[in-house]
Amino acid sequence: MNLVEVGTVAFDSIETPFGKRDKVVGGAATYISLAASFFVKESGLISVIGDDFPKDMLSNMENKGIDLQGLQIKEGEKSFFWSGKYHYDMNSRDTLITDLNVLADFDPVVPTDYHNCEFLMLGNLAPSVQMSVIDQLPTRPKLVVLDTMNFWMDIALDELHAVLKKIDVLTINDEEARQLSGEHSLVKAARKICDMGPRILIVKKGEHGALLFHGDRVFFSPALPLEEVVDPTGAGDTFAGGFIGYLASTKDISFDNMKRAIIVGSAMASFACEKFGPERLLELTKDEIDTRVREFINLTEVDIELVS
Amino acid sequence: MNLVEVGTVAFDSIETPFGKRDKVVGGAATYISLAASFFVKESGLISVIGDDFPKDMLSNMENKGIDLQGLQIKEGEKSFFWSGKYHYDMNSRDTLITDLNVLADFDPVVPTDYHNCEFLMLGNLAPSVQMSVIDQLPTRPKLVVLDTMNFWMDIALDELHAVLKKIDVLTINDEEARQLSGEHSLVKAARKICDMGPRILIVKKGEHGALLFHGDRVFFSPALPLEEVVDPTGAGDTFAGGFIGYLASTKDISFDNMKRAIIVGSAMASFACEKFGPERLLELTKDEIDTRVREFINLTEVDIELVS
Repeated sequence: MNLVEVGTVAFDSIETPFGKRDKVVGGAATYISLAASFFVKESGLISVIGDDFPKDMLSNMENKGIDLQGLQIKEGEKSFFWSGKYHYDMNSRDTLITDLNVLADFDPVVPTDYHNCEFLMLGNLAPSVQMSVIDQLPTRPKLVVLDTMNFWMDIALDELHAVLKKIDVLTINDEEARQLSGEHSLVKAARKICDMGPRILIVKKGEHGALLFHGDRVFFSPALPLEEVVDPTGAGDTFAGGFIGYLASTKDISFDNMKRAIIVGSAMASFACEKFGPERLLELTKDEIDTRVREFINLTEVDIELVS
Repeated sequence: MNLVEVGTVAFDSIETPFGKRDKVVGGAATYISLAASFFVKESGLISVIGDDFPKDMLSNMENKGIDLQGLQIKEGEKSFFWSGKYHYDMNSRDTLITDLNVLADFDPVVPTDYHNCEFLMLGNLAPSVQMSVIDQLPTRPKLVVLDTMNFWMDIALDELHAVLKKIDVLTINDEEARQLSGEHSLVKAARKICDMGPRILIVKKGEHGALLFHGDRVFFSPALPLEEVVDPTGAGDTFAGGFIGYLASTKDISFDNMKRAIIVGSAMASFACEKFGPERLLELTKDEIDTRVREFINLTEVDIELVS
């Protein structure tokens, strides 16, 4: 298995200014694997669900080449459930309910078929669970990408620092980069965070785009101004899935290719916002992705002579 | 006179997390004319000051080709004074003092030498003052750019709507675009605002860059991630000055050239943030501008094949 993704597979209840959806399929690994499936023929998913999770969604994922050997199904238990309400500006949200359910004592098991994976995407989860997956791999993958959030910085900072030492790329949002580094300037924050382990930092800024830091080099991917953002749930995970899916399909982890991957990830994330839950990702075509990537390129393309 | 700029010439007292400066030279027209002076040989400035304004700063501006025929000096009166304190994040600030002084009954007079100006930059001022300048010009300039702020939307919306009908390009920030249009989506906001008069809308997003809307076309200029933002005062005006200065020097108002101009404006604005007041603009060289523009281009430059 060339690409393996780890994260939640869950139910979300979402309220935005555009409407409300109860118990739609969600979870970081769901978005990551669906987004990546447009670029790789197959990938392995490591997660846990209860027996309440819809079977047709699992078949749907398998049809898209998502291997479910690593997905534990706990009989008589319930899947992880999150409920949240977005504010008018869509940039902030309140969590209303978090029912861990099966996630409370999730002990990931990496199937033998995944042992030689070259690309590993550790979606947002307890740092100790992310570490456990790394520890089970007999050979280190070519690229390990980790996504996390402020919640883990608040309650599991030591474990987070331990796993940061084992990864190549960290993806977090701007406020989290500032929290983790104690620096307001993102340039300084990136330098400090890269001293913690990852050689590359991706700062996700939502509707303001994303920054890619590597040493003294920096690349910026804009976000496409959208007519309507219906539901941003899963946009960050979809970004990560597009990013690592593109890298895994091209097998090129140079800085130049990461620039391309971050554009692809941003394009995928823009789709995720257009409908509730993963709805838009489920109906998406490759042609639509190509067109959207082209729109991203056009957005910043300029032909300019020097001034003096 | 090819380029004419209108706006305040004033004193600012500024406090940021990096320090404090009392009564430094400031004002929209000061920043606009200084930024533009790197691109045009001369420009005409329309403003008003008291006799407290430093003579050496006026000589300095004249040496940079800024014509002061349109600058009224009121004997025995004081220049406009603004004092503000920036929050930790530098994206928001509190106004502590606003002493209108000479600005209270400013009645702009356009010198005959400025009558045939092709490029007119109306910096942030009462919409009625901006309108008075337009009304005094016997022939309409090739391009009229107007900057305004939420304050005028709150207290002089009718006058603002009247002057919007007379201009080509409006520059405001994202919150102001939302306020003026009543739309959260910037795409929808741009459409509504362009129906109010300007054919082009520039949305300034500070550290998140700037968007250029023209019909269904959109261009995004990133902001360069800076090591340190020392003082963002005047960054928006410096942006406007670089934008119109570049356009006036190239005499090309096509969409493609506006893309270049918005990059140049963004580069100029990034310098303005590096030191207090207009200090950085006063010492800046053309070589530094070229290097900075190149950094802006590199920031988003990517070579990507389509995905499928």
